[in-house]
Amino acid sequence: MSSPAALAERALLLEVAATPTPGNVDRERDLPDLRFEQFLAGATGARDGLERIAEGDAIADGFENAVACMAEASGTNTQFGSLLLLAPLLRASVRNDRLTPETASAAATATTVDDAAAFYRSFGHVDVRVDDPPADLEPLDVRRGSDAIPTLRDRGLTLADVMETAADRDGIAAEWTHGFERTFAAADRLATTDGPIGERAARVHLELLAAEPDTLVATKHDEATAAEVRRRAASIDPEDVDAVRDFSEELIDRGINPGTTADLLAGALFVALVRGEVEP
Amino acid sequence: MSSPAALAERALLLEVAATPTPGNVDRERDLPDLRFEQFLAGATGARDGLERIAEGDAIADGFENAVACMAEASGTNTQFGSLLLLAPLLRASVRNDRLTPETASAAATATTVDDAAAFYRSFGHVDVRVDDPPADLEPLDVRRGSDAIPTLRDRGLTLADVMETAADRDGIAAEWTHGFERTFAAADRLATTDGPIGERAARVHLELLAAEPDTLVATKHDEATAAEVRRRAASIDPEDVDAVRDFSEELIDRGINPGTTADLLAGALFVALVRGEVEP
Repeated sequence: MSSPAALAERALLLEVAATPTPGNVDRERDLPDLRFEQFLAGATGARDGLERIAEGDAIADGFENAVACMAEASGTNTQFGSLLLLAPLLRASVRNDRLTPETASAAATATTVDDAAAFYRSFGHVDVRVDDPPADLEPLDVRRGSDAIPTLRDRGLTLADVMETAADRDGIAAEWTHGFERTFAAADRLATTDGPIGERAARVHLELLAAEPDTLVATKHDEATAAEVRRRAASIDPEDVDAVRDFSEELIDRGINPGTTADLLAGALFVALVRGEVEP
Repeated sequence: MSSPAALAERALLLEVAATPTPGNVDRERDLPDLRFEQFLAGATGARDGLERIAEGDAIADGFENAVACMAEASGTNTQFGSLLLLAPLLRASVRNDRLTPETASAAATATTVDDAAAFYRSFGHVDVRVDDPPADLEPLDVRRGSDAIPTLRDRGLTLADVMETAADRDGIAAEWTHGFERTFAAADRLATTDGPIGERAARVHLELLAAEPDTLVATKHDEATAAEVRRRAASIDPEDVDAVRDFSEELIDRGINPGTTADLLAGALFVALVRGEVEP
């Protein structure tokens, strides 16, 4: 039987192989500065850190290791957000008989101030695109990296607390804070949609993109752009693969890649793999 | 730093991502009964067995575990030949300062009768296409699986000895027996060819296909077909990607997949990754 960490790595790989996924790297498309092979390498690099999370290390220690080795393997930041979402899901899957929104949330709320510190350290390994925090949270801007750790300790903030402060502007932090709602709903869709896994995953990617604005797009561009991309995604007939492809090409030409949506898909694929609801 | 086992898994993934690779699954093409995603899953399944080889377990125990978990993960036989080639290369890479034909051959010749037994057991996990052995080797037909083990022990055959008996009709056994000559030559080509890794790997795949008949094609079809495919591959201008794509489509339509050539490419990618001569 494949280990939980193997399933987490597999979810990363099945995510990047889902095609077409508008604006993101897939089997048909590389971005100008980000190639498919870098995602493959990043996933293999992350595996050891994922194993550590499965084996019971502090979640964010495993996460930090996964991020560092992903970055070393891929030469860039391929899967930071996906790993941040996978970490509590993976922990919940090994600590419980069933992987549910409740067990995943319990894994998230069990994080500590040390987890928060490791999370901040992980920003030292990669270049992560984030939005400016509100003024009162400026001392906790993740771009401060390890320099923010004294403030974390002063305020006694756990990793779950840190996620809560960003939940209104980051789609992955929102999952941590709101019971992994979109992740599990997308996993249910993966389980009930027809076709081979690559098509199912692409379909669910489009549904996620149509449902809420992608927060990476909002950060890199602006909220209006994220809203427009969402509306456009919602207007496309998912059966019309040519239209989905054209949309993908347009987004790539405009430099718009909905990375948070891809991260959510990776989390959903993991849930569906653990539950045995999809197979490659 | 990525572990040697991570590099071995990465080699499996970069192999299937190399595009176009005539007749084989790649980013652009699935086979009717074999999808890209199954190779991704197979690679993640094999990782634990690869770790065991790196950690010093008997080579063929790690190989058998990798094959069993690859088969469970992918639902079929995606990478048996690649794993058989990677096993001694991986062992040599952790036991020596340098990975060379000499150190790889030393890892191969260090195998034991127990390794041979584990190799025969591994055929119980997957359906591997092999040729009929010569009459005197019939008791050692790998399709006998574990039933052949008493004969192995009677004759005192190591895994290297077993490989030698098949070297004239199996491209991977030939590598084990003849100093991994084609694997290292292909790794050198990967290192000196220009372009991103996916293009380099596709180029080297075509060169391997043009150089010698693919033994899986000879087994599944016949030697004349394997010879024809080799000649055709040699006649194509590698710069003419459309011609390579047309050739790929024709081979797939005819049900011809040069799997041994893909296995050799996976081995070459591993050597080049270990040596730091390519990056994703």
